[in-house]
Amino acid sequence: LDFEVLILGCNSALAAHGRHPTAQLLRHHNKLFLIDCGEGTQMQLQKFKAKPFKIEQIFISHLHGDHYFGLIGLITTYHLLQRKTPLTVFGPKALEPIIRLQLEVANTSLCYELRFVATQTSSKELIYEDELLKVYSFPLYHRIPCTGYLFEEKKQLRKINKEKTKDLTLNPELYAQLRRGEDILDEDGVFHSNESLTLDVPAARKYAYCTDTMYSPSILEYIEHVNLLYHEATFMNDAQERAQQTFHSTTGQAGLMASNAHVQKLIIGHFSSKYIDLKPLLNESQQVFQNTELAEEGRIYLIE
Amino acid sequence: LDFEVLILGCNSALAAHGRHPTAQLLRHHNKLFLIDCGEGTQMQLQKFKAKPFKIEQIFISHLHGDHYFGLIGLITTYHLLQRKTPLTVFGPKALEPIIRLQLEVANTSLCYELRFVATQTSSKELIYEDELLKVYSFPLYHRIPCTGYLFEEKKQLRKINKEKTKDLTLNPELYAQLRRGEDILDEDGVFHSNESLTLDVPAARKYAYCTDTMYSPSILEYIEHVNLLYHEATFMNDAQERAQQTFHSTTGQAGLMASNAHVQKLIIGHFSSKYIDLKPLLNESQQVFQNTELAEEGRIYLIE
Repeated sequence: LDFEVLILGCNSALAAHGRHPTAQLLRHHNKLFLIDCGEGTQMQLQKFKAKPFKIEQIFISHLHGDHYFGLIGLITTYHLLQRKTPLTVFGPKALEPIIRLQLEVANTSLCYELRFVATQTSSKELIYEDELLKVYSFPLYHRIPCTGYLFEEKKQLRKINKEKTKDLTLNPELYAQLRRGEDILDEDGVFHSNESLTLDVPAARKYAYCTDTMYSPSILEYIEHVNLLYHEATFMNDAQERAQQTFHSTTGQAGLMASNAHVQKLIIGHFSSKYIDLKPLLNESQQVFQNTELAEEGRIYLIE
Repeated sequence: LDFEVLILGCNSALAAHGRHPTAQLLRHHNKLFLIDCGEGTQMQLQKFKAKPFKIEQIFISHLHGDHYFGLIGLITTYHLLQRKTPLTVFGPKALEPIIRLQLEVANTSLCYELRFVATQTSSKELIYEDELLKVYSFPLYHRIPCTGYLFEEKKQLRKINKEKTKDLTLNPELYAQLRRGEDILDEDGVFHSNESLTLDVPAARKYAYCTDTMYSPSILEYIEHVNLLYHEATFMNDAQERAQQTFHSTTGQAGLMASNAHVQKLIIGHFSSKYIDLKPLLNESQQVFQNTELAEEGRIYLIE
């Protein structure tokens, strides 16, 4: 319940059939991260009663409009509502001048600090880190430069089993070694395996976001073993050629990525407007990777 | 029924209380004109089942985001849906580079022709004309350059009263003079007043759009005697000082403009998000100008 993603928009290209362009809100403990920001994202945040002021980092995948046209509106709204805390936007280098230009013509001098961090598409890169979480960008394969994002919990320190350590003489450094998962020699020189003196903690969890991209096994290394993978499935299998031409993926290809990356669960999204009923897309994906779900706006998916 | 305006967004600054940023769709006979284009306008067009492909001219008042952040999305959607007909956008000069830059970073080469016509704020100017209608821009008084728009029907030619002309000898030039409203000498040299040989036609109608602007009587000359005036009323009367500071108008000032310009009817809009219930705004405006209505999204107002 402390690591979850709310889908704000799951359609590709344009709004249709009540579906909106791409945006999602990731929560990790008390922090909120916005991933992509299609037109109308601020209205979707309102609609689903999210707390937009708690967002301090925004991650933009690429500069097709359905992934960022809502950003300037959100930035401006923060200003009108007198935001104080800094906001950092991660995304392609060309994003900053677009935003700055629009602020300039409006004669708007923001009342809060707006920082941009440029992403690159040559390799995986650690771009954000806090006490509990690391965020990496990694290259995707689209018509214009595009990155996926990996949200990875830091490994928690192991818990000391007080029952087992109470009769031992352990200095603070030995406790620290135990918490880091190391075996130790105690102050009397006696060996203790880590497992004998510590308790398991929940495994570190990972969420990977892959849109927009054509099918490419070279992405697998970035998303291996994630607990939850969001992967685009713009088209059904019978449009595989069209997917290739437009640098998008099919339902089957999304399933294949999930299967080959050994992920626990897959959400497919970024649906073409030509599909009104999405059940057939789910079925196709599930034939390759059973634990698949459709992205649905307003729904929260746990990362567990 | 052949000259009407559909309100798509009536809120100022940001979306709130179910109200959207500014946009409206003007219909004159079979032509549709979009006036301003706040974020989410394309969704509002969908919601109210308008026909966005019939829009060939878009008029942007100024470059505060609540009046144009939806434009790039609409332009892109037209491309994705393979629009063929040219689109002309009227607005401040700085608008074109913003749009071109965003198309460029998306590597989008539009499949239709997109033209920009720059507005200026020094004087009234005829910027568009078709067989039935003329559109003028005129200066408003806001924090950044801003124009209002006047949509004025061309004077219709008078109708020949066939009953009265059937026994006269009139060549085509004489008929043309009659249609233009002139008195004539017939081919026998006999004088005929225009009224004696022609029938009245409906008077030319006018719609004026005034937002955003502070109260300024210098605007009156541009909007005199219009059938319908849309005028911003961002604040109530008790916030007159705040209105002045932010270059906006109050409900009373909007009413005063309508009264002094001798318009037939006033719609107030561009409401501050601080007002949830709009009835008090209507009351204040009606105390100055009785025939006032609130802008309501999804509602069509006739220009008659």
